[in-house]
Amino acid sequence: MNKETYKEYEKYMLSQMNDSAHDCQHIYRVLYTALNIAESENDVDMDILITACLLHDIGRQKQFNDPLICHATEGGKMAYSYLITKGWSDSKANHVKECIRTHRYRANNPPDTIEAKILFDADKIDVSGVMGISRTILYKGQTNEPLYYVNSEEQVIYENGDSFIQEYNYKLKNIYDKFYTNRGNEIAKQRQKAAVNFYNCMLDEIETTYKQGRMNLNNALL
Amino acid sequence: MNKETYKEYEKYMLSQMNDSAHDCQHIYRVLYTALNIAESENDVDMDILITACLLHDIGRQKQFNDPLICHATEGGKMAYSYLITKGWSDSKANHVKECIRTHRYRANNPPDTIEAKILFDADKIDVSGVMGISRTILYKGQTNEPLYYVNSEEQVIYENGDSFIQEYNYKLKNIYDKFYTNRGNEIAKQRQKAAVNFYNCMLDEIETTYKQGRMNLNNALL
Repeated sequence: MNKETYKEYEKYMLSQMNDSAHDCQHIYRVLYTALNIAESENDVDMDILITACLLHDIGRQKQFNDPLICHATEGGKMAYSYLITKGWSDSKANHVKECIRTHRYRANNPPDTIEAKILFDADKIDVSGVMGISRTILYKGQTNEPLYYVNSEEQVIYENGDSFIQEYNYKLKNIYDKFYTNRGNEIAKQRQKAAVNFYNCMLDEIETTYKQGRMNLNNALL
Repeated sequence: MNKETYKEYEKYMLSQMNDSAHDCQHIYRVLYTALNIAESENDVDMDILITACLLHDIGRQKQFNDPLICHATEGGKMAYSYLITKGWSDSKANHVKECIRTHRYRANNPPDTIEAKILFDADKIDVSGVMGISRTILYKGQTNEPLYYVNSEEQVIYENGDSFIQEYNYKLKNIYDKFYTNRGNEIAKQRQKAAVNFYNCMLDEIETTYKQGRMNLNNALL
């Protein structure tokens, strides 16, 4: 791919992105991480990979407007149509479409080609580490969901609701062994410790505060 | 204060709170931390302190609706009016009002009484550590502001804009030596390391990704 073509696809991508959690910086991180992973893999079609990375979230806005729409399926279709207008062959445009369609984790919908596997891993790496924690909290702010809930004894609830603590236990902590490439797995593992530390510190700050406070309050009230 | 009175003031507070970053859990954390600090101070009026903590952010919604309104000033007035209707003396209601008015950092508006200083410190502690980081990112999501910006060379911008990175450098990293009580200072210092670690890991994840990625992209494009 030449620089002009890259700029053209980048411009199209930018025209489709406008929410902070999945804003254009997420796209660049995924693209750059994918290029890092690609260095350790053989026979990667770089045009397919770069294009699929740039366009992988262009269906987000449609999913945001209608949560029943899957941004991966929708984005794949949008990318295919766009690339056909740019003179891509049906086969190559379809390859990009499949990368985008399978980048979102679904048990019955695994990535198939090496380019699809690299995009999948690079996108998951952006849910790992401190960046994964930060993006998840940012999204909680956007959807007005809280960091945590407590029960009637003021103990933190880990498993129910729509809180960050629930999302961490349901999703974030479990992503570290679901990578298709060795390099992807390696990068995620490097980031894991900082995410675990953050979560443990958060729980400690919350639980210490409530435990001591509850006792002090009971002593202070008549 | 007896339990029934506490429940009554708590109910009034809950009726005034409805955004996640400053939701009711923030109020309980501040109250509990204040009670913790109060244990190390002499001659604390616990009725004043508990009431000021419970009601310190009831002006938030008005500030949210009109950013020119200061929630501390407004909340102080609301608390005074509320407490007068509950039979408080002018002097005691005014004491609570002053605690609330001075809980927000302003150079020309320092907290005066021990109860005001404890509230100030307890509120600042909720901006320290991992909780401070989390609340700031949550707020960025609510206001649709990003984690960071990069310049035209794709280097992270530390000092301008409305990003989390800017807020950390402008505010969060500088709060650790602005406490009025020894116990407040001690709690904040215990939390500082986790916040600094988180920030450093975030920068490292971002800068490593962009630096390697930019190089790989230049090599990949014709």
